[in-house]
Amino acid sequence: MKRLLITGAAGNLGKICREGLKGYADVLRLSDLAPMDPAGPNEEVVQCDLADRAAVHELTKDVDGIVHLGGISIEAAFDDLLQANLLGTYNLYEGARKNGKPRILFASSNHAIGFHKRTTKLDEASEQRPDSLYGVTKCYGEALASYYNDKFDVETVSLRIGSCFDKPRNRRMLSTWMSPRDFMSLIKAVFDAPMTGHLVMYGVSNNASKWWSNDHAAFLGWNPQDSSEQFRAEIEAASEAEYRHDPAVIYQGGPFASTGHFED
Amino acid sequence: MKRLLITGAAGNLGKICREGLKGYADVLRLSDLAPMDPAGPNEEVVQCDLADRAAVHELTKDVDGIVHLGGISIEAAFDDLLQANLLGTYNLYEGARKNGKPRILFASSNHAIGFHKRTTKLDEASEQRPDSLYGVTKCYGEALASYYNDKFDVETVSLRIGSCFDKPRNRRMLSTWMSPRDFMSLIKAVFDAPMTGHLVMYGVSNNASKWWSNDHAAFLGWNPQDSSEQFRAEIEAASEAEYRHDPAVIYQGGPFASTGHFED
Amino acid sequence: MKRLLITGAAGNLGKICREGLKGYADVLRLSDLAPMDPAGPNEEVVQCDLADRAAVHELTKDVDGIVHLGGISIEAAFDDLLQANLLGTYNLYEGARKNGKPRILFASSNHAIGFHKRTTKLDEASEQRPDSLYGVTKCYGEALASYYNDKFDVETVSLRIGSCFDKPRNRRMLSTWMSPRDFMSLIKAVFDAPMTGHLVMYGVSNNASKWWSNDHAAFLGWNPQDSSEQFRAEIEAASEAEYRHDPAVIYQGGPFASTGHFED
Amino acid sequence: MKRLLITGAAGNLGKICREGLKGYADVLRLSDLAPMDPAGPNEEVVQCDLADRAAVHELTKDVDGIVHLGGISIEAAFDDLLQANLLGTYNLYEGARKNGKPRILFASSNHAIGFHKRTTKLDEASEQRPDSLYGVTKCYGEALASYYNDKFDVETVSLRIGSCFDKPRNRRMLSTWMSPRDFMSLIKAVFDAPMTGHLVMYGVSNNASKWWSNDHAAFLGWNPQDSSEQFRAEIEAASEAEYRHDPAVIYQGGPFASTGHFED
Amino acid sequence: MKRLLITGAAGNLGKICREGLKGYADVLRLSDLAPMDPAGPNEEVVQCDLADRAAVHELTKDVDGIVHLGGISIEAAFDDLLQANLLGTYNLYEGARKNGKPRILFASSNHAIGFHKRTTKLDEASEQRPDSLYGVTKCYGEALASYYNDKFDVETVSLRIGSCFDKPRNRRMLSTWMSPRDFMSLIKAVFDAPMTGHLVMYGVSNNASKWWSNDHAAFLGWNPQDSSEQFRAEIEAASEAEYRHDPAVIYQGGPFASTGHFED
Amino acid sequence: MKRLLITGAAGNLGKICREGLKGYADVLRLSDLAPMDPAGPNEEVVQCDLADRAAVHELTKDVDGIVHLGGISIEAAFDDLLQANLLGTYNLYEGARKNGKPRILFASSNHAIGFHKRTTKLDEASEQRPDSLYGVTKCYGEALASYYNDKFDVETVSLRIGSCFDKPRNRRMLSTWMSPRDFMSLIKAVFDAPMTGHLVMYGVSNNASKWWSNDHAAFLGWNPQDSSEQFRAEIEAASEAEYRHDPAVIYQGGPFASTGHFED
Repeated sequence: MKRLLITGAAGNLGKICREGLKGYADVLRLSDLAPMDPAGPNEEVVQCDLADRAAVHELTKDVDGIVHLGGISIEAAFDDLLQANLLGTYNLYEGARKNGKPRILFASSNHAIGFHKRTTKLDEASEQRPDSLYGVTKCYGEALASYYNDKFDVETVSLRIGSCFDKPRNRRMLSTWMSPRDFMSLIKAVFDAPMTGHLVMYGVSNNASKWWSNDHAAFLGWNPQDSSEQFRAEIEAASEAEYRHDPAVIYQGGPFASTGHFED
Repeated sequence: MKRLLITGAAGNLGKICREGLKGYADVLRLSDLAPMDPAGPNEEVVQCDLADRAAVHELTKDVDGIVHLGGISIEAAFDDLLQANLLGTYNLYEGARKNGKPRILFASSNHAIGFHKRTTKLDEASEQRPDSLYGVTKCYGEALASYYNDKFDVETVSLRIGSCFDKPRNRRMLSTWMSPRDFMSLIKAVFDAPMTGHLVMYGVSNNASKWWSNDHAAFLGWNPQDSSEQFRAEIEAASEAEYRHDPAVIYQGGPFASTGHFED
Repeated sequence: MKRLLITGAAGNLGKICREGLKGYADVLRLSDLAPMDPAGPNEEVVQCDLADRAAVHELTKDVDGIVHLGGISIEAAFDDLLQANLLGTYNLYEGARKNGKPRILFASSNHAIGFHKRTTKLDEASEQRPDSLYGVTKCYGEALASYYNDKFDVETVSLRIGSCFDKPRNRRMLSTWMSPRDFMSLIKAVFDAPMTGHLVMYGVSNNASKWWSNDHAAFLGWNPQDSSEQFRAEIEAASEAEYRHDPAVIYQGGPFASTGHFED
Repeated sequence: MKRLLITGAAGNLGKICREGLKGYADVLRLSDLAPMDPAGPNEEVVQCDLADRAAVHELTKDVDGIVHLGGISIEAAFDDLLQANLLGTYNLYEGARKNGKPRILFASSNHAIGFHKRTTKLDEASEQRPDSLYGVTKCYGEALASYYNDKFDVETVSLRIGSCFDKPRNRRMLSTWMSPRDFMSLIKAVFDAPMTGHLVMYGVSNNASKWWSNDHAAFLGWNPQDSSEQFRAEIEAASEAEYRHDPAVIYQGGPFASTGHFED
Repeated sequence: MKRLLITGAAGNLGKICREGLKGYADVLRLSDLAPMDPAGPNEEVVQCDLADRAAVHELTKDVDGIVHLGGISIEAAFDDLLQANLLGTYNLYEGARKNGKPRILFASSNHAIGFHKRTTKLDEASEQRPDSLYGVTKCYGEALASYYNDKFDVETVSLRIGSCFDKPRNRRMLSTWMSPRDFMSLIKAVFDAPMTGHLVMYGVSNNASKWWSNDHAAFLGWNPQDSSEQFRAEIEAASEAEYRHDPAVIYQGGPFASTGHFED
Repeated sequence: MKRLLITGAAGNLGKICREGLKGYADVLRLSDLAPMDPAGPNEEVVQCDLADRAAVHELTKDVDGIVHLGGISIEAAFDDLLQANLLGTYNLYEGARKNGKPRILFASSNHAIGFHKRTTKLDEASEQRPDSLYGVTKCYGEALASYYNDKFDVETVSLRIGSCFDKPRNRRMLSTWMSPRDFMSLIKAVFDAPMTGHLVMYGVSNNASKWWSNDHAAFLGWNPQDSSEQFRAEIEAASEAEYRHDPAVIYQGGPFASTGHFED
């Protein structure tokens, strides 16, 4: 791969990718609304507002793949989500369509299905049940990706990411954790595959406790190597037991499902 | 029912409802961005831009049900869809949430699933495959409805409407036609039901040729009475045969699926 | 058919069968713990406690079919259900096994699945979710029927009866009503069929509002002729609207699901 | 339709089609290995051995559709089936491929699925379970049709025909009967449809007792009008009851399933 | 966990638990109808007849969890099963309901599904097919557990135990074996989970030959560590090959499926 | 096992079996149309044309199992496939039926399902979609196997073999490769199992990239030990990237799906 665009490069996932994908492409083009560290070797740094259509069309030129992490990644005021996640994602797909149709790894979220119970095992055919306005914007993004694939042959892997940190931070993440290493190997599997169409996947490591299945995507050959289990004792020692009548414990989305409306 | 709000009242479906639901509620509150005929008996007429949050919150006060037909109902420029269908629908749901949580009949569309082939029978569990940006906004509306039901107990029937006219207008509509009479009986079934949760349905009459199943919604007791079959001879005489390699014939969305990008 | 045994003949369903099956068999053998009207022509009347094994073995001699309506048909104290429905049904199956293996129509109940929501469409593969101790005894009866079929080739149709009265008596019964006429035609279809194995069915007329599917049993050729719809106006006029947060409205079992423990 | 080829025109189904499809196409081309009545108006009569490749390639020229009834339609010696049904059907598809790819109605048979029990409801996704060598050749024909559709865009409706006679002839046919009238309307629906791909259907009227579902093919708009029920009394009076341990009663294929090997 | 009640503590599984769960709870309360070894440190020993309601209500006081192994665990006379497994299990659930609703691990059995063929892979949605009266009582127990969860929020894991011994004892157990170690880790996973609802699982180690799937229960994070494979050579050397027409080989229940009625 | 017949013993798979199954049976009977190496110890070598019925009936005498690799294993002229794969396989099954009904391992092929996309995960219930005339003959073989099992109790494992070579030879084989070692262990598992009925399986190693599931066959206890992953770097270095619009890349059958008709 010659040039890989990473949006949202100033965020948590963006930094993981900037570090972890070094050398995977000849050039990493890094973009964010926020300031980023200056470009190192084989890097391009482009500050860009995803809501600025002309800028995004420029940003997406001459790239062979896009890791779209940009936009807002937590619950937020609707008007902010509208700009960053609804308008911004549209601008990105238009850019891709007009600029050679690079494949896209779209950072969807477990919050697109967060109102399923933890006791339910999900697969790619499970109903969307967003747990937040943020989750609704991710459902929208998946629909947009489906449309661009069906009509324009712009391929996307919509990755419903669990929790990507160095290690799980609470009991819920024992089930939702994706290690940075597994995330990196997944991104490579996605861009190395001969074809993907529009594929919905769950971004999660090989944890002992599982809510989600990627069996349908086994053609990719991605087999996560890490498990949260090594952190279980530490996390359980440091936190109180979960209460089974708490919506944050009942539903997969955790606190996103139990929290009321953002603006109230 | 005391007061039923109908948005999009100046449009085709809105006029059908204004006429067909006379007497169903004590008062019909009719709303549109466009001018409407003056209020008759038992009517209130409120010109309102769905993108105006304060106005929409006012509009949704003191209503016992909402038939949400408002917004743009054909393919359009994204920036227009953003205002009318993305922002507008959010404003409507926020209004409903703050104003007593009336049940909502949301006019979704077959264009939310328009990239399925005609030879595929769909049900409520079928994957969304939007055929247009317009269709994407309907997928978004369904996700929003799911969220408001799960978190706030605002119930919605998301009705994927086929083609609602006095009679079918082309060969495709022999399969997608919903008679105004069947539409009216469906709306009544929806608001008369003790509960609906978030329910996805297909808005279609009892045509001989069927692409969609409402079996899962049989608890509503809605059984459409009309069929397009009586118009078949007339339509076939007046039109050329369909060509099986035409995307507009292959896909359920018809011309929405075969047309390129709106703005190109 | 030469001789058909009807247990529970003194009850509501039993009386319907005694009247409705006149002439279907050469002899109707009628049994109940309670006193019954004296035997008419082509009838045998045998008072019998289902908990009395020897008596039941006698009762089941020389019969070509059994309509097993006996036992307790409402929520009751466990110790009473134990005798009538757990022990009694076992005695009946043992009688059948030892006496030539006549086919059995077992009156199971919608209360075997009463904790499913009304918005869920059930079929024969739906999970049992009993709503009462009574419902648990019906699940047990279905398991017993499965066992006797698999091991001893005693065939059973386990009929999850909705509400069998002259007409529906409340709003819930608009969905659960089975007319006596449809019940009789079903019994005949069951005993006329060349084979049934163990077959779970729903006992319900062709109502407009449907919660249950008998598609899997279409080989029987039973097509109910009646619908509750003719009684809708009368029932709705005579009763208050249902409240959607009432467990008796949410769940299919109605008041069985909403009522606490019998003995508290 | 200008010219429709009917193979097997001298057989039972062929005669029904020759009579019933008069006027549907400008010309009916009728073919069989056996002698046929001379050509009437708008008819062409061509005696042809399906095992003769060159003759079949000639036969399939200049036709807009093919109703392929030819070959052996009962259990037979393998070597005869090899010629007529394995080689013959291949020749027919090759003819179609080389001669403009007319759509084909392939007379498959319920004997392709005859080892399913009568108590099992089948649909298009049900496993093939042939009950005879004849049935195996029909499975082969369906596989061939799938291949020609996927690779060469030769469309086929593989119709698993039940029993097509003026009226049902025995108790089994109360479930398997397809009236000649319904068969004719089905053929027309197949050739009038804009597209079919490779579609597996069951050829059966709207009988009260059903083993098979065509729900997946509802896009065709075919709704059979006849039912075997009117003949039930007559047939039951004229025949003995079925014995439930008889394989001919247990399995859908009837005597085909219970009969031993043809050549023993 | 402060106090864990183990019923059936004098039996095979009970002894495994008494040993294997030492230290898991502050106190193990051990109960059986039969005499048990005297209480050691952190143990309470209570001889109790499960058919004695008052005694069971006393037994279930002040416990935080129940491992319900009590009752009869092999085929037996119905009247004995009635007391121990039908009445006894009811008494236990009533005790749990009245005494703070501790979670229950219910020892169900593979004999609840023993009439499925070995060639069929089962999951939690597979139909119950009991192979014995004993198996019927386990189906009843699962129905009771479902009821107490739905109505009273008493949670249960219904564990369909295969064969729990130090090592497999015959060829069938190569597929059904659950090691004591895996059983213990499962019990801990069940009681450590924040919630379970009513969950049906299969109690089996990670054997090479598998009949059952626990995929749906992956949220528990239980991953059995043992496999019967290490014992295969030894067992095959010591036993004759299985005969494929033997019902004990055809059906999962083994000899329970092939044996006739207990009392004959 | 006393005597195992291997047909097609002169071919690639046949040689692998001849070597790999040494010692598994007392005698290996090796058969092919082509010349083979002379018989070694515990071997019988029989040159035989599968199209010669009498010879095949002789060939199948006194054998306890058959590995049927014979016939044509690539796309070929139909008339050749007719003799070798249609007639030949029939002759083999007739031989088996008349000679004691040994179990058969039938070498079916991934080309029986080759027109499924690589992005689709298949299991045993997936629709047949042959990609070649060769693939059609394999569908026929599976139907024949089903028939002989249902009617005559001749058991078969229809193994849809991927690519069985010492190592994968191209990028596609990274997904389809079955190592000779895994093939041998599978054959042993098949013949050691107490029963199989007719079982469709996929013949593939434990590769990282998976298109096919054998979960339904887990009762066999076969767990492949090899993976193509060790060869990935070598293969990718030696070959060009796959082009996603190439039918040979889109479809599982690879070049079989993309190649036109054999005889054109």
